[in-house]
Amino acid sequence: MRYNHEREITAMLTMQPIGHVRSPFQATREIPKGLGAKHEEEGTLELLAELEPGLLDIEGFSHLIVVWAFDRAEGYDLLVTPPSDNRQHGLFATRAPRRPNPIAVTVVELLGRDGAKLRVRGIDMLDGTPILDIKPYLSNVPEEQLRRGWLAEAESRTAPGVPNGSGGGQ
Amino acid sequence: MRYNHEREITAMLTMQPIGHVRSPFQATREIPKGLGAKHEEEGTLELLAELEPGLLDIEGFSHLIVVWAFDRAEGYDLLVTPPSDNRQHGLFATRAPRRPNPIAVTVVELLGRDGAKLRVRGIDMLDGTPILDIKPYLSNVPEEQLRRGWLAEAESRTAPGVPNGSGGGQ
Repeated sequence: MRYNHEREITAMLTMQPIGHVRSPFQATREIPKGLGAKHEEEGTLELLAELEPGLLDIEGFSHLIVVWAFDRAEGYDLLVTPPSDNRQHGLFATRAPRRPNPIAVTVVELLGRDGAKLRVRGIDMLDGTPILDIKPYLSNVPEEQLRRGWLAEAESRTAPGVPNGSGGGQ
Repeated sequence: MRYNHEREITAMLTMQPIGHVRSPFQATREIPKGLGAKHEEEGTLELLAELEPGLLDIEGFSHLIVVWAFDRAEGYDLLVTPPSDNRQHGLFATRAPRRPNPIAVTVVELLGRDGAKLRVRGIDMLDGTPILDIKPYLSNVPEEQLRRGWLAEAESRTAPGVPNGSGGGQ
């Protein structure tokens, strides 16, 4: 099929939650942010009961990619000053929640499953956050090829000695 | 804010493309799949011109997370037999394109930028695929903690000696 610019450009995609996050965080200010922030909180991904068969064999994976919605973010700016720096960067060079499509991606460690509920570590979502998708985490970028741009620079300016201030596996 | 089950469960989220992928792949059968598949094709992420300021400083990152839509997939099954195995697995333990929310996540290597166009390596999308979001890739899961469930088993059954058949960094 050839690319049809007009058809694509006007397309709207409608998403519906497949479940919700149960998290200890009730307010954004409770979620660790900025340089050196660690995401080690445990929580639960509660899928809709009818989707449980789709979790078959998921226990074999140590880590999952959770795609979720920043459902309490509105609007966006193309230039943002993230909590980990005092300089402006382009929105798409940050993980800021206010985005054209308010989609977030978090890698969590799978601790266990009880039916349609997945107990995980590494939660950085608010309680009640809608989950859009769950996928197995399959492979890393080779460490020697990874460059982390302004974030690495901000770390070296403000927090020398912090080897990785970005939280686990995101 | 407290979690309001009824409000959340009925919420629909509407997404709109922020741009499109220019890819050498015109048909799904051209995209490498299954065990040992490598995604090393180059392509371009063409953002809408008005979003270009949001790319400021993105060149500092070696790898990007591209969130995109499987816009040519319809419906889904909760049990699937992926191209990398001859056994059924739960949909959420696979990267199958037919999902409740047809969202894909691909990690690509950033080769260069020309205005609102990003030249990247590691394309596994069809030409014309709508892009929903772009984020910097920040960190890996520690290699010694990573388990890859049925995929590792399928590899050891059918292709011993292939250390990582899942493609780069996804």
